[in-house]
Amino acid sequence: MVLHVRKEPSATVGPVLIIGSGLLGASIGLALTALDVPVRVRDASPVAEALARDIGAGEVDSASAPEPALVVVATPPDVTAGVIGSALHMYPNAIVTDVASVKSIILDELSELAELDLSRYVGSHPMAGREKTGAAAATGELFAGRPWVVCPHDRSAPHAELAVRHLAADLGASPVTMTAAEHDHAVSLVSHVPQLVSSLVAARLVDAPETALGLAGQGLRDLTRIAASDPKLWTAIITGNAGAIREILRAVRDDLDGLLGALDRGAEDGPLAVGAMHTIAAVMSAGNDGVSRIPGKHGGRRKRYTEVVVLVPDKPGELGRLFSEVGEIGANIEDFSMEHSPKQKVGMANVSVLPAVAEELETELTNRGWRVVAK
Amino acid sequence: MVLHVRKEPSATVGPVLIIGSGLLGASIGLALTALDVPVRVRDASPVAEALARDIGAGEVDSASAPEPALVVVATPPDVTAGVIGSALHMYPNAIVTDVASVKSIILDELSELAELDLSRYVGSHPMAGREKTGAAAATGELFAGRPWVVCPHDRSAPHAELAVRHLAADLGASPVTMTAAEHDHAVSLVSHVPQLVSSLVAARLVDAPETALGLAGQGLRDLTRIAASDPKLWTAIITGNAGAIREILRAVRDDLDGLLGALDRGAEDGPLAVGAMHTIAAVMSAGNDGVSRIPGKHGGRRKRYTEVVVLVPDKPGELGRLFSEVGEIGANIEDFSMEHSPKQKVGMANVSVLPAVAEELETELTNRGWRVVAK
Repeated sequence: MVLHVRKEPSATVGPVLIIGSGLLGASIGLALTALDVPVRVRDASPVAEALARDIGAGEVDSASAPEPALVVVATPPDVTAGVIGSALHMYPNAIVTDVASVKSIILDELSELAELDLSRYVGSHPMAGREKTGAAAATGELFAGRPWVVCPHDRSAPHAELAVRHLAADLGASPVTMTAAEHDHAVSLVSHVPQLVSSLVAARLVDAPETALGLAGQGLRDLTRIAASDPKLWTAIITGNAGAIREILRAVRDDLDGLLGALDRGAEDGPLAVGAMHTIAAVMSAGNDGVSRIPGKHGGRRKRYTEVVVLVPDKPGELGRLFSEVGEIGANIEDFSMEHSPKQKVGMANVSVLPAVAEELETELTNRGWRVVAK
Repeated sequence: MVLHVRKEPSATVGPVLIIGSGLLGASIGLALTALDVPVRVRDASPVAEALARDIGAGEVDSASAPEPALVVVATPPDVTAGVIGSALHMYPNAIVTDVASVKSIILDELSELAELDLSRYVGSHPMAGREKTGAAAATGELFAGRPWVVCPHDRSAPHAELAVRHLAADLGASPVTMTAAEHDHAVSLVSHVPQLVSSLVAARLVDAPETALGLAGQGLRDLTRIAASDPKLWTAIITGNAGAIREILRAVRDDLDGLLGALDRGAEDGPLAVGAMHTIAAVMSAGNDGVSRIPGKHGGRRKRYTEVVVLVPDKPGELGRLFSEVGEIGANIEDFSMEHSPKQKVGMANVSVLPAVAEELETELTNRGWRVVAK
C-alpha cells in the first residue's frame, strides 16, 4: 500500500530517475510518488522494473523521457560507481546521488575518471532497511525518522548537496552531513563490525551440543539476531568498506588477545592469577562505558522509565488482555518488550512506564490477578 | 511480594538452610517458603540476612536450629567451594547443593579435600537472573520455566541428585542433567563468550565520535545490551570458568584472524581480491547456520508468526491505544517488540500474530487510521 509520509509540498524537484528498483529504490519511488514528484525507475531486470511500476513506485524509464533533474542510484554497492559515472555523462545537468552503504570506495572510483563533472555528485546513505529485500518489501515509510547521511566532497557543488538533503527531508529522514571517510568509519563501528562479530559468535553454535543450546537465554538471542542477515549482500558491503572495518576489528582482536592472555593465566595459575582479574574487569568496565554512550530515542539521553515486569501465561489473548488492562488503569506504555525462555509456559512482559505511575500500576495489576515480578 | 509458584505439595524435604541471601538465595527462600517448606537463611552480612527475613525468604539461622535436610549455597562463586566444604562437615546428614554459575572449578576444589563426604554434594545452576542484584530484587517466580542444570559426579549419591532435581522442579524450573564439564562448556557458549564479545564491541564505542553513535540502530543496541552487566560479578564468573571460555574464545579469535586476513587483501588489492569474498561469505553463512540452531519458545522450533509493523506516534497513550484496538479487532498478540531510532518521532511496533489473522489485522488497523508498514 502507498503511504503518505507528509502532506507538505516537497522540496525535491523532479523528474527523478531511480536506477535500481530493489528495496531502497522502490521505497524512494513510493515516497516521492506520494509527494506528487514525477518518478521514473530503471533496473537491469525488466521484471524488477515492472514490479516497481506495479506497486506505484514510478513510471518505467524510456529513451524519450526528458532529462531528470535528480538521479538516485540504488544498485548493489559493487556496481554503484559505474552507474553514477554513466548517469553524470548521460544527463549533463542532473544532480546524481546514490544510497550505497559504503562511500569512500565509490568516491575513489569516481575520482579516477578525470573527465567526470563530480560537482553534481553527492553520495548519501539512508540508515534504513528491513530484513526483507526487493521491491515487494518496499514502503514509503522506510526512511521516516531515520538518519540519512549526506557526503559532500572537495569537488561537490553546494546546490547538489542541498538537493540530496531535500530528498532526505522530503522522505521524512534526518539529513546528517559527514565526509565519506567519517561515514565509513561510523558505519563500521555501529553496523559492520557488530554484524561480523555477531556472525562469529553464532558460527560457534554450528557444532554446539543440543543440550548447550537449550540453555540459551535472551542475551545470546539478542547478540546473534543480526547473524541471520543475508551473506551475499553483506559480503559486498564488507568488502567495499574493508579499510575502515579492519581498523576497528584489529582493535577488537587486540583486546581479545589481551583477554585470552588473562584467561590463560587464570586457567593455569587459578582465578587469582596476577593481572587476570584486572584485565577482565577492565574489558567489562569499558563495555559499560561504551554502551552508555549509545543515544536513546530521538538522539537524546535514554529516558528513565521504570520497568514493570508481569508474568503472562502463554495462552491466546493474554498479552492483549494485559495491554487492555494497563490502558484501563490509565498508565501509558512508553516501551515494551517480551522475554521468553525455552520450555517456559509463561512469558515475562517488560512494561516501561513513567516512574510516577509504576507503583500504582503494579498494585492495580496485582489486584486484577496478574503476577507482577518486581518489588 | 510473595508469589506462589504452584499449589501442589512440594517434593523438597526441609528444613532447608540457604547460605548467602543475595538475589538467588533470597528468591529460593521466597519460593520455598511459599510452598510451606521451613527455610532458614544465613549470610556473612547481618543486614543482608535481616533483609531476606523481612521480605519473607525464611527465618534467620541460629546455632540451636535443627540440622537441615538440604543446604543451598548461594554465595559468590569464588567462595562457594569453601562454604560447601564447611556445610558437609557441619551437617553430616544433609544434602548440599550450590547455585554458582561455574561448576568444574568448585568440584575440583572440593575433590582436593580428601576427607569430605562428597556423596552428599551435587552442584547445580539455575539459568535465571535479573539485571538487579541483592535480596531486594528477589522473587519467588525467578526460576519459573527456566532450565536448572544439575551436575552429578563420580562420587555423588543418586538420592542427592534427586533432592536437587526436586528443588528445581518445586521452584517451577526444568531440571537438566549435565556433567560439570558439559555445563561449563555450555554456559561459555551461550552466556560467557557472548558476554565478553558484547563488552569488546561496546568498548570500541568509548572513543567513538558522537556523530557515529547517532547512526546506531537496533542491531548495535541488541548486540551491546548485555555489555551493561556488572563487571565485578562477571569477572568472578569468567575467571572461574577460564578454561572453557578460552577454548571457545580462541576459536572466535582464529575465525577473526581469518577475517582480518581477508579484509587486508580487500583493502589492499580491492574488493575482488582472491579469496577475500569467499572468507567473508563463509563467516556470514556459518553465522546463519549457528543462529538457526537456537531453540525458540518452549524449546521447540521457532513458531511461524507473521509480523505486522505499525508506526506509532511518540505521544503518550498511543501504544496503549494500539493494543486496545488490536484487542477490539480480535487478534491475539503472540509476541511484540518496539523499535526506535535516534530523532525518530514515531516508533515501529512489531506485532506478531498468527498468519491467518495478519491480513485482516492490517486492513482493520489501516481502516482505523494506523500506518501499517507492510504489504
